Amino acid sequence: MEITENVDHGRAIAELKELAELTGGPGGARRVCWTDEWAKARRWLREKLDEIGCEVETDEAGNLWATVRGASERAVLLGGHIDSVPNGGWLDGCLNTIAAMETLRVLARRDELPVTVRLVDWADEEGARFGRSLLGSSACSGTLDPDEVRNLKDKDGIALPDALREHGVELEKMNESHRQLENAAAYLELHIEQGPVLERLDIPVGVVLGTFGVERHAISFTGQHAHSGSTPMDVRKDAFIAAARSAVAFRDDAARRDDVRATTGFVNVSPGIVTAFNGWCEMSLDQRALDAGVLSDMLAVAKENSERIAREEGCEVRWERLWRIEPRPFDEHLIEMAEEAVREVTGTSHRLPSGPLHDAAEMAPLMPTVMLFVKSLGGLSHTKEEDTPEEDIALAVQAFYRLAVKTVGWVAGGGGRR
Amino acid sequence: MEITENVDHGRAIAELKELAELTGGPGGARRVCWTDEWAKARRWLREKLDEIGCEVETDEAGNLWATVRGASERAVLLGGHIDSVPNGGWLDGCLNTIAAMETLRVLARRDELPVTVRLVDWADEEGARFGRSLLGSSACSGTLDPDEVRNLKDKDGIALPDALREHGVELEKMNESHRQLENAAAYLELHIEQGPVLERLDIPVGVVLGTFGVERHAISFTGQHAHSGSTPMDVRKDAFIAAARSAVAFRDDAARRDDVRATTGFVNVSPGIVTAFNGWCEMSLDQRALDAGVLSDMLAVAKENSERIAREEGCEVRWERLWRIEPRPFDEHLIEMAEEAVREVTGTSHRLPSGPLHDAAEMAPLMPTVMLFVKSLGGLSHTKEEDTPEEDIALAVQAFYRLAVKTVGWVAGGGGRR
Repeated sequence: MEITENVDHGRAIAELKELAELTGGPGGARRVCWTDEWAKARRWLREKLDEIGCEVETDEAGNLWATVRGASERAVLLGGHIDSVPNGGWLDGCLNTIAAMETLRVLARRDELPVTVRLVDWADEEGARFGRSLLGSSACSGTLDPDEVRNLKDKDGIALPDALREHGVELEKMNESHRQLENAAAYLELHIEQGPVLERLDIPVGVVLGTFGVERHAISFTGQHAHSGSTPMDVRKDAFIAAARSAVAFRDDAARRDDVRATTGFVNVSPGIVTAFNGWCEMSLDQRALDAGVLSDMLAVAKENSERIAREEGCEVRWERLWRIEPRPFDEHLIEMAEEAVREVTGTSHRLPSGPLHDAAEMAPLMPTVMLFVKSLGGLSHTKEEDTPEEDIALAVQAFYRLAVKTVGWVAGGGGRR
Repeated sequence: MEITENVDHGRAIAELKELAELTGGPGGARRVCWTDEWAKARRWLREKLDEIGCEVETDEAGNLWATVRGASERAVLLGGHIDSVPNGGWLDGCLNTIAAMETLRVLARRDELPVTVRLVDWADEEGARFGRSLLGSSACSGTLDPDEVRNLKDKDGIALPDALREHGVELEKMNESHRQLENAAAYLELHIEQGPVLERLDIPVGVVLGTFGVERHAISFTGQHAHSGSTPMDVRKDAFIAAARSAVAFRDDAARRDDVRATTGFVNVSPGIVTAFNGWCEMSLDQRALDAGVLSDMLAVAKENSERIAREEGCEVRWERLWRIEPRPFDEHLIEMAEEAVREVTGTSHRLPSGPLHDAAEMAPLMPTVMLFVKSLGGLSHTKEEDTPEEDIALAVQAFYRLAVKTVGWVAGGGGRR
């Protein structure tokens, strides 16, 4: 399919500002899902979509779908999420939705669209109110277990099922949203990077290789605390020193590739007083990699490190898994088309993994999926200081449109999920 | 002076048990200073001392003195403290007082005592109620500044001056206790080791070289926290990793001698969550050595380590001193006499520094001072599980008596402070 008319990136940026005016402002975005402000943003979105003249519906999980029908029912999905964290940025999530809307607007004007194109505005990507992210997309993909979220409460004690019901969503029926994917052939999403990689390379738009797999553990070291003065160094069983050496090893030994992550987050010690060394230390380790084999190697090396160090320090070590998710690599053919689209618009490109999760991670196991990242200034994310230069947003919207056109052509030619 | 009659170590052990029965029991010792239980223990002690027939008085700081006059007013002091921590052991402090009392009892029966011998039972060595240890001995030595303790309160909000007044002590007059040292020539003290050194060497009694100097700092590292997934390893400014590497260096690089200590105690990180690396970490470092030059070298090496590591990790580091005390080395001649006494009784000896502080540290700058340590089982201290085998207590009481006799002879011959 040819590029016959380009997207109006100026209109997309104007709409982002209009939405920020309506549901954001100096304190940042306030479109937390399942709140009045989010509903207000959704009404605004729906009015805009109605103007395009597409079919708009909300599914059982609260996801909003806008459909421009083509010659075939097989559909290219363009995803985003208009919900935000509290005091969030003006781009996280809604850039995706608005770039998708602008793309849909241009495509809807074509006389002949060979396949169907659908925008999906996912409900509750952030999980900001109840702590469960990717809620709408996981219901749609079929990975949501209602029992796992039924008892979640917000900070005011309101239960998740009650909050959803106020917005017309019945927890028990959410998974019925899966029928929306019946004819889905490919999934595309644009997002801000939320990290420093593209800015450091001075590249406006990059192609995402997939979302990292994550292994998250709590690791506790147990020695025996005693007095800082009376206990010679060579007889100590210092749990903090064992943990400190392990944390360094988790980075320097178990995460020596430049495309992985290893992070010590919480650190707690006991007794934690100036006059004793610590007999107990617990810390978290969050390991990420795009390749499942690499990730399991990192975990194995980290466990070996911690066991050797604990032994050397006279301590015991115990690992408890907090959470894990498999890597979700994106589609190789879509990655190539995305790179082509980005190069056509910006003259350059860069492939990078995604550290954070995205709704695309829920779609990737089901159909060919790819994402574009646009540069984030200072790598800032989930704060009102999040920002991207407007010229880069313009390039990203154009590249996303070109990717959508290429993908429509690919699906029309038999590509994508069948 | 000759050893003409030996101490009755069996009586000393019986008295320790009698005191434990009176003010201890299954929950441990409850002789916290400036409480009724402590006063009860003091009355018991006073009755015992009255039976010996020595002069007993309480000074302006609440220290109890029992004096057996000799031909000269020049005095050998035998120190201890009958106060304990809450739920304390049956030996910490009162072993010293009771061994001194037994020594005094034997010496009082002599026809001719060339110099005066005095027992001092220091008030509030532990600082268990108001957090200021060595209170009575520091008032006596002249290092107590009343302004520094005037506003201390116990956990019930009772002010230190009010609690002292209930026991007949006026804060403003405490330093007048210094006159007790007018004729003091030497100071001796026996204590449980509170550490594992003697037990590991299988030696019942050792000679203390002095009390460690202490340098205690809070060290804070400041980087910049960010998301555990989106931030590549090589651009991180991870304050916890900087702190962890430094803590290891403080031990492995700045404390490589076997006669020093370096202890990381409290450790606090921010934000301290699983999904971010830490932008801030503060930890305490407690460094101890018997030699002032060694201690200042340890501090300098530790600072260099932390600054180099902070630079390598893209962080800032800041040191804040929490507390310091100079090393208090004991008297070389008394150390030799103590070793002689210990060898005569046990056949072996060992010299070791004291990690914890003791009242002896207040006397050491004023007069020749030495301490004996008796083995502690498992290095346990400040707990009711604290213990020492009775046969070792017996040896310690005998060695302490012999040391006292030797010191009396030395002072009679012109040794000691003049």
